[in-house]
Amino acid sequence: MKKSPGEFELIARLCAKLPLSRRTILGPGDDCAILAPSRLPQLVTIDSMVEGVHFKLKWGTPQALGARALEVNLSDIAAMGGAPAACVVNLAVRPGLDAAFFDRLYAGLRKAAAAARVDIVGGNITRADQFAITIALIGEVRGNALRRDAARPGDALYVTGTVGDAAAGWRILDGKLAARGAVRSFLVGRFLNPSARIAAGLKLARMRPAPAAIDVSDGLWQDLGHILERSRVGAEVTPDAIPRSPAYRTLMGDDLELALGGGDDYELLFCMKPRLSDAALSRRLGVPVHRIGTIVKGMRAILLPDHRRSRTIAPRLAGWDQLRAIP
Amino acid sequence: MKKSPGEFELIARLCAKLPLSRRTILGPGDDCAILAPSRLPQLVTIDSMVEGVHFKLKWGTPQALGARALEVNLSDIAAMGGAPAACVVNLAVRPGLDAAFFDRLYAGLRKAAAAARVDIVGGNITRADQFAITIALIGEVRGNALRRDAARPGDALYVTGTVGDAAAGWRILDGKLAARGAVRSFLVGRFLNPSARIAAGLKLARMRPAPAAIDVSDGLWQDLGHILERSRVGAEVTPDAIPRSPAYRTLMGDDLELALGGGDDYELLFCMKPRLSDAALSRRLGVPVHRIGTIVKGMRAILLPDHRRSRTIAPRLAGWDQLRAIP
Repeated sequence: MKKSPGEFELIARLCAKLPLSRRTILGPGDDCAILAPSRLPQLVTIDSMVEGVHFKLKWGTPQALGARALEVNLSDIAAMGGAPAACVVNLAVRPGLDAAFFDRLYAGLRKAAAAARVDIVGGNITRADQFAITIALIGEVRGNALRRDAARPGDALYVTGTVGDAAAGWRILDGKLAARGAVRSFLVGRFLNPSARIAAGLKLARMRPAPAAIDVSDGLWQDLGHILERSRVGAEVTPDAIPRSPAYRTLMGDDLELALGGGDDYELLFCMKPRLSDAALSRRLGVPVHRIGTIVKGMRAILLPDHRRSRTIAPRLAGWDQLRAIP
Repeated sequence: MKKSPGEFELIARLCAKLPLSRRTILGPGDDCAILAPSRLPQLVTIDSMVEGVHFKLKWGTPQALGARALEVNLSDIAAMGGAPAACVVNLAVRPGLDAAFFDRLYAGLRKAAAAARVDIVGGNITRADQFAITIALIGEVRGNALRRDAARPGDALYVTGTVGDAAAGWRILDGKLAARGAVRSFLVGRFLNPSARIAAGLKLARMRPAPAAIDVSDGLWQDLGHILERSRVGAEVTPDAIPRSPAYRTLMGDDLELALGGGDDYELLFCMKPRLSDAALSRRLGVPVHRIGTIVKGMRAILLPDHRRSRTIAPRLAGWDQLRAIP
């Protein structure tokens, strides 16, 4: 697509002196980047963050936004049990954002990329009315990938970390929930500064048989639905077992709404034979892990009877015609 | 990023029954696609088309738009001398566009992908105020890629096909130029239905030493500037040699403005030792080729003296501080 001189200048500015690993034969500045051949199967994903839909600029720094744009993509690589390698970045640039803003955005993106050993090998800039950052990420996977279709009846259902924090943080930033002090800063931080579970994903991918996995981006209940749908199985989930942070409990009490239905956690939800205790599995993966349920036959997600909570959760299932909450 | 049920439904609808080659181990429906290992160096590129910036919906069919979104990416692979393999697609969906629109968009995209033997291996859909389609494309290159930095003094400068047609077509669609009949339909067609020069690029990549090349997306003069900048060389261009279609000449006469400064041609501009006549090179590449100039020392692009035209062209160079037109 035809560009303006200003767009070229911004591309040149952002791509100047990007550090590149030996895997990258040719970085930004040509029609395509060139990567060295890969002996492993390759992972490919694309994700986009749009101003006013996924974030507001006043919520955080440009650096945090740049890092977050990469982390949400890294989370998709983590959910396959892969190692990230290279990315290309598309910026839709609206009027009112200056070069200093993009310098800071890229500073955050570069820092996250360096930490994850990802080369930023190219990009594109286009004018638009709405600011958006879209990243396509390439990774590789050794051995078996963690697929959504690998869950089997009898598997235990686990989740890393805690869920619902980011959704609470979003609502605090958006003025829909009130919190302050350490509770506020923890929850807001969980939304603004997610960290993909790459290391845990790599360790899961070494287990046999390969666990099924997905990252929790759309909310635990909906992402569980994706696994069930693809694996053609069901699940029984124990509400009390769903891990929630102290900050979440301070703000939400026992309300599971955001832990089940909120998104943006970027934790891993996975299914495997229940051979290890939560403590042993947590040690193995290097991250807290909780068993929250069991995979069963029949394509139904059942929140084990708890009448107080079932009404809160049912509406979230409206989008899943093959899943039904049993009150 | 958290999605709505409607976004999931649209993704599922568009990704249903996408044909996939054996290179694709896992297509749409998981956190990432999985591609088989590649023994060749890989090419990666990303490009975006934004409604109101790069196109208006009333200008053409959704099918043509979907095909064009892929072709402009394919053109970047062609300009490296590569073969395309797989792509991921990000759709920014605004209110007012229905599922039927996206079905037609994807019909065009799928047809173009099938013709180019590209697997659509995944995608993402997000809400936005402005419709945009962003595609990241992966290809591979056998032997030497066609790089922008490979031009050497003494090389001849060539371009495939004709230039300026698409820019004229854009202006006709936008009401800035008037044309009718066959002239209009040819020029508008060159804008709406570009075809990447994949086959010619592959043939160029077999030549030794590997030619320098770029695709003409920003306009011949500006894209030449990219080659000169990266190769740290200059060029002397013969205005009369710049290939223009009969339709272009009917509409524009001898005016070179759009042939030099217009974009969206998706022809290949390349530099190599002048060992073959235009006719022989055209036969070799399977596409009309014209020599339009010579690569020289010194980082200056010179439009060989033609006082009538130099003034038209000079303002286009404003964005290039290291390039100057010599009137």
